[in-house]
Amino acid sequence: MKPTSKNLPFNDTNITNGFWADRQKLNREVTIHSVYDRFKETGRFDAFKLDWKKGEPNRPHIFWDSDIAKWLESAAYIIAKTPDAELESIIDEVVDLIDKNRWDDGYFNICYTLFEPDDRFTARHNHELYCAGHLMEAAVTYYNATGKDKFLKIMCDYADMIEKAFVTEKWAEFDSPGHEEIELALVKLYRATGEKRYLNLSKHFVDERGKTENDAYSQAHMPVREQEEAVGHSVRAVYLYCAMADLAAECDDDSLFTAADKLFDNMAKKKMYVTGGLGQTCVGEAFLPEYDLPETSSYCETCADIGYILFASRMSAIKPHRKYDDAAELALYNGFLCGLSLDGKGFFYDNSIEVDLIGISNPKDNRHRPFYPITQRLEVFDCSCCPPNVTRLIASLGEIACSASDDTLWVHHFIGGDFEADGKKTTVETLYPENGKIRITCSGNFRLALRLPAWCRSYTLNGGKNAALADDGFIYVDVADGDVIEYSLDMPVRFVQANPKVRQCCGRIAVQRGPLVYCAEGVDNPLPLKNLYVDTKAEGKLIKNDEFSFYGIELDGFIKPDSDELYYDYDENYVEQKIKLIPYYAYANRGETDMLIWLTRE
Amino acid sequence: MKPTSKNLPFNDTNITNGFWADRQKLNREVTIHSVYDRFKETGRFDAFKLDWKKGEPNRPHIFWDSDIAKWLESAAYIIAKTPDAELESIIDEVVDLIDKNRWDDGYFNICYTLFEPDDRFTARHNHELYCAGHLMEAAVTYYNATGKDKFLKIMCDYADMIEKAFVTEKWAEFDSPGHEEIELALVKLYRATGEKRYLNLSKHFVDERGKTENDAYSQAHMPVREQEEAVGHSVRAVYLYCAMADLAAECDDDSLFTAADKLFDNMAKKKMYVTGGLGQTCVGEAFLPEYDLPETSSYCETCADIGYILFASRMSAIKPHRKYDDAAELALYNGFLCGLSLDGKGFFYDNSIEVDLIGISNPKDNRHRPFYPITQRLEVFDCSCCPPNVTRLIASLGEIACSASDDTLWVHHFIGGDFEADGKKTTVETLYPENGKIRITCSGNFRLALRLPAWCRSYTLNGGKNAALADDGFIYVDVADGDVIEYSLDMPVRFVQANPKVRQCCGRIAVQRGPLVYCAEGVDNPLPLKNLYVDTKAEGKLIKNDEFSFYGIELDGFIKPDSDELYYDYDENYVEQKIKLIPYYAYANRGETDMLIWLTRE
Repeated sequence: MKPTSKNLPFNDTNITNGFWADRQKLNREVTIHSVYDRFKETGRFDAFKLDWKKGEPNRPHIFWDSDIAKWLESAAYIIAKTPDAELESIIDEVVDLIDKNRWDDGYFNICYTLFEPDDRFTARHNHELYCAGHLMEAAVTYYNATGKDKFLKIMCDYADMIEKAFVTEKWAEFDSPGHEEIELALVKLYRATGEKRYLNLSKHFVDERGKTENDAYSQAHMPVREQEEAVGHSVRAVYLYCAMADLAAECDDDSLFTAADKLFDNMAKKKMYVTGGLGQTCVGEAFLPEYDLPETSSYCETCADIGYILFASRMSAIKPHRKYDDAAELALYNGFLCGLSLDGKGFFYDNSIEVDLIGISNPKDNRHRPFYPITQRLEVFDCSCCPPNVTRLIASLGEIACSASDDTLWVHHFIGGDFEADGKKTTVETLYPENGKIRITCSGNFRLALRLPAWCRSYTLNGGKNAALADDGFIYVDVADGDVIEYSLDMPVRFVQANPKVRQCCGRIAVQRGPLVYCAEGVDNPLPLKNLYVDTKAEGKLIKNDEFSFYGIELDGFIKPDSDELYYDYDENYVEQKIKLIPYYAYANRGETDMLIWLTRE
Repeated sequence: MKPTSKNLPFNDTNITNGFWADRQKLNREVTIHSVYDRFKETGRFDAFKLDWKKGEPNRPHIFWDSDIAKWLESAAYIIAKTPDAELESIIDEVVDLIDKNRWDDGYFNICYTLFEPDDRFTARHNHELYCAGHLMEAAVTYYNATGKDKFLKIMCDYADMIEKAFVTEKWAEFDSPGHEEIELALVKLYRATGEKRYLNLSKHFVDERGKTENDAYSQAHMPVREQEEAVGHSVRAVYLYCAMADLAAECDDDSLFTAADKLFDNMAKKKMYVTGGLGQTCVGEAFLPEYDLPETSSYCETCADIGYILFASRMSAIKPHRKYDDAAELALYNGFLCGLSLDGKGFFYDNSIEVDLIGISNPKDNRHRPFYPITQRLEVFDCSCCPPNVTRLIASLGEIACSASDDTLWVHHFIGGDFEADGKKTTVETLYPENGKIRITCSGNFRLALRLPAWCRSYTLNGGKNAALADDGFIYVDVADGDVIEYSLDMPVRFVQANPKVRQCCGRIAVQRGPLVYCAEGVDNPLPLKNLYVDTKAEGKLIKNDEFSFYGIELDGFIKPDSDELYYDYDENYVEQKIKLIPYYAYANRGETDMLIWLTRE
């Protein structure tokens, strides 16, 4: 599969205005420091000294290398745009510790070095290669941000050592990683160094998968090209799919792209919550069967959405199609963004589809209760993979906004900023998703491709020449140097239903406007929220929320008198009741309260 | 709590006509023999010889004593009405084996005697006392049916031995049984023998519960009088509640009745499926929190409904109220009856609220799939507690139909037959629930109390004097010798909704007629069933099913064009579509197919 386009290098992108500029500012000024403080307090940074002793607090955990790696990578993305000597010195200190404490053969891992030095690469599910992969990603990003190559070289040594263990000398006791990540990291290492062995090592791990193993939880139940259903641990899955897309592009591998495309469709059309969230069960943080999207067991880990966004963006660069970008956008503005509090300090790990405090507050029989996720965001978790992944995606978001071929520049996401590729430059100004107006000033003569989201029923486009909507869902328009394109997407309040195969949503609707999914919160509406009935024939009204500067929605609707019976004759005894909604990403910022996305139809 | 009335002794009841006479005939002619054959084949009867050797097939299981005990009790109920020398000789053979193989101290248990003779009463959850209880019930029933007291005396010895172990000598290593059953059995033993020590032993087990233990799964997380929420294993729970009701009546114990009443309300108003089924999760066959009634994990074990019916019937004798009988009736005609195939040979163990073969037929990742119950009934299970419990309840049903005080006879359930209590005799003729006409011929002068089900909005009553509906939901009418009461309940097709706190049912309705809950089956309707939308403004039509002699229902409704999208804009693009329903109890008698109770509202 010869890729149609490539995402722009991060250095050729710059987010300057609008929704995401605000969020990058918060990320840079608050979130990255808050996560640093929490990781420092919990011993994660000091763990790189490898001097932890039995009996001391903060015993290092097998994921900690990756927690810090993602923080390092986030900081590297940030300083690439906004130089910051303090952040840079923290990175350098960690790199020095890695250099000091790595093995002579290039290996580095906190827990194995401290606790099980004789057991390297013996336990497939212990995240060694996952940690290595995140360190590699951080090293590449730091190199691209600063030009400093010490970290990159350390990680090349480590990759060389891994190649020996798994390919040349074959002494490792398993064939592919339990938790994927290194596959996509090795492609980045190849792109940064030009060293083809790293690409081949990535290909090796992807191709070996499921040949000698039978492990659906880690997507190793069959060779990847035969997989058609997304199964197992959802974060593992999407990280693998990212690597499949990368390898399809780098190796012109049609069969790999086709498999990745099927897996994408399987998630987007059969396993994705309306928020873009993935992972239908807390049991194993995993996928469930198709069309089974329960609200009680939903997981929707923030990291799964991050991987999903990265995967979809890779696919849409290889073969641009709005189906990928629509899904990535849904996840970005909802399932992902919900993971961060509006003050930039709190995180969800898993993102609830519904909060029902009645169910939660009556825990007399904990043994057999279903899982109920936390209702308020926390600053750090024991397993804190999500927080530094959030800072990383926000800092790096310019990478996925656009892609380019020789003659065309695709605008996948409507993000205010400057995006440049070989003489094709666009300056995007927009308040999206507050409204649908997007103004694009072009430098150079080229073809501009603007995504028309599938949810948009009406739009206007002024400027340029020969504008035409193609089957891939992009409007292609010829632009000349200095052209200003005014692209405006109609953004009414929409009522969305689920495919009737989704039992949990029968008779209910979700409210969306543009890419945003809305929810009802208990602080704004009478409880129980499930007793609200939406009048789908009335139009929703936008209402500005001044405290948090977003638009809420007021709907016409109904409520029924309370009953203490469990079942009773259905009647039309409805009383009028306004229903107030806020964007899903903004829920749980005003104290603990009920939350509901799927509202009942009157 | 001085009981207002008592259920009639089984010997003073006789089911002679209508729905349950047909089912007792099937039970007597087919089911009891089929269960016998399966239990014989699987070694359950031979296990009472206590000569099983390692390496042989059919290793005895800890529940087997109780499986056979329930079969014995079923056979005893049957021969009380229809003498059958063959059944009686089977019972006598088992009794002889028990007598031969019991311990000198009176103890009898197959597995402990064979495998762990030194560990009697050391493991609370190993069902020793549960098995003992079922044997006691069988002994009492057999004594009442035949007057033969050998079995009864054996079980009295056993009860004496248990009293020593738990009360007098206190050498047993736990305080109350893990799986309740013996508590209610000891009350029966007391009633059959007049020996008050058995009543006291029952009271001991109930009162000790939750004092030294902390085990919500077995309802031992707090003293029973403090329990307000039904938790843990659902069968254990309802068996305990039966004993609480029995002891409340026998000991004039108001606090116990009040606790039992709260637990009843908790189940009926917050935890019961629309079929009357109990147990919201297959994980531990247990209750979930209030208002959480998922269709995917539902358990609704047949035995739980049997215990629920017995419990509600006890409560409504003590203090007659239609709330108890309405719940028992719902469970009887739906959740319970569904457990038996129309040919009388097949059984469900757990009774699905929904069958979705799309979800079941795609098992690529079994590790993280939710539980899916069986879709077709089986003749025997490894854990086959339900089949002999079904034969037992059907054979004994006369016991719960009516109750009496000195001057009043309550008709709790509309079952065709003769019911007599101290000069108050009724002969009930009815096709109920095929229609709502009930004809009652009275002998004697007394007050007749007829339940008016809460679902009934309109009725006529002719005959007798001073008919008046009381707050307890009974119509009290004075009758004289020879009076014929014509009681007729209107039985239109009703659309029922769930309390909006039940997330799973928002926007959906269930269809009921009289006590019957209806469902759509895939063999009668286009798939997926969740794409059917009911027009709640139209009336349902009754349609006779000649093959199975029940009435189905045809509804006006709609269907939407198929979509392969997961989410899309809600529209009113409905196409007319008739929807065909059958009684829930009759589903899965025409091959494997989808089934849905909760239909979406248009």
